[in-house]
Amino acid sequence: MTTDSLEITPRTRLRRLHPRGHHDRATIDAILDATPMCHVGYVIDGKPAVTPTFHWRRGDRVYWHGSSASRALRAAEGAEVCLTVSLLDGLVLARSGFHHSANYRSAMIFGRAEKVDDPGEKTAKLRDFIEGLYPGRWEELRPMNAQELKATTVLSLPIEEASAKVRTGPPIDDEADYALPIWAGVLPIRHATDTPDSDPRNLADLTPPSSLGTLQIG
Amino acid sequence: MTTDSLEITPRTRLRRLHPRGHHDRATIDAILDATPMCHVGYVIDGKPAVTPTFHWRRGDRVYWHGSSASRALRAAEGAEVCLTVSLLDGLVLARSGFHHSANYRSAMIFGRAEKVDDPGEKTAKLRDFIEGLYPGRWEELRPMNAQELKATTVLSLPIEEASAKVRTGPPIDDEADYALPIWAGVLPIRHATDTPDSDPRNLADLTPPSSLGTLQIG
Repeated sequence: MTTDSLEITPRTRLRRLHPRGHHDRATIDAILDATPMCHVGYVIDGKPAVTPTFHWRRGDRVYWHGSSASRALRAAEGAEVCLTVSLLDGLVLARSGFHHSANYRSAMIFGRAEKVDDPGEKTAKLRDFIEGLYPGRWEELRPMNAQELKATTVLSLPIEEASAKVRTGPPIDDEADYALPIWAGVLPIRHATDTPDSDPRNLADLTPPSSLGTLQIG
Repeated sequence: MTTDSLEITPRTRLRRLHPRGHHDRATIDAILDATPMCHVGYVIDGKPAVTPTFHWRRGDRVYWHGSSASRALRAAEGAEVCLTVSLLDGLVLARSGFHHSANYRSAMIFGRAEKVDDPGEKTAKLRDFIEGLYPGRWEELRPMNAQELKATTVLSLPIEEASAKVRTGPPIDDEADYALPIWAGVLPIRHATDTPDSDPRNLADLTPPSSLGTLQIG
């Protein structure tokens, strides 16, 4: 866990609702590590596009990957991107429509996406990705071959220009509205995992990796 | 449910993995309607930014809202945006790292964000938002006042230039790898709601709206 606080820039300054804003690495890293899913924004022909993908963090950088033929990855490589990770933790019901809200955690990282070129480093990063989700699995798998490595692009961003926003707790209503006979509160939301569905083509007597039993998202 | 299929444009053509791609309104609308959470991408000073927010659909348009002072909303108004909705349905474990994947549903809508200016229409859209999540709640709430209406910006996009991607089912491995003694399968993921947390400041004898008991995300 890093206790650094990042430098605040014009695009990471949280101008509204600033009590919800954070720039410390511990808060940002915890959000990045809580789910594999992120949304990467990039610009094509001056227009924005937002693609969902998986990311993983290693130290001071966040990584994502995809097919080397992917339009999204080719547009992002060497270009300014924004990688956003968001978790919806609850629906917040207030006594007025205006104060309805959501409990959430989100992190935004801005910067220029860099491609991981070195094959050894790329392999190590892909191993980190698999091992981060499923500890022990990399060694169980059929090894990656040269063609697969070539067909995969890994991009990364430094966690330097970044911010987080977090909302927790009950609704914040106008003081006068607390006297109204209107139920208010929070409907908690979380990610749940179900029992693994084994591939019908599995060989006999195989059991799911034990890591799936403890895998948590959120 | 609309059975229209949208015109395919260069940015909604799905060039890779096209069997996962859809351009019919029924598929797109079902994804938009399955969760309130989306990510809106916009461009500030030539650089992308991606903000999580809530959206709702009404007919052929998708809407989102926020503070009239919001940097994200002011950047989006009248400008090109990309609104993406994504649901993670499962982690797909294959027999090689390369074929690990995710089951998901995502929809991307491109276009120029339009502000809802007319106060009556804006009120109606905000009502749609609350009622879409919590049927019956709008009438229970302290009514919206003029100051709140003014402080809220509602933006919308037509569902015209849009596409969806959906992956379901087990891993697709290289044929030779099916002979390997490696467990493969899917870890299903879903959104779960927990028991509502009542606001400690609620008046006595209030109970949560019955709509929360049937609210589903995903």
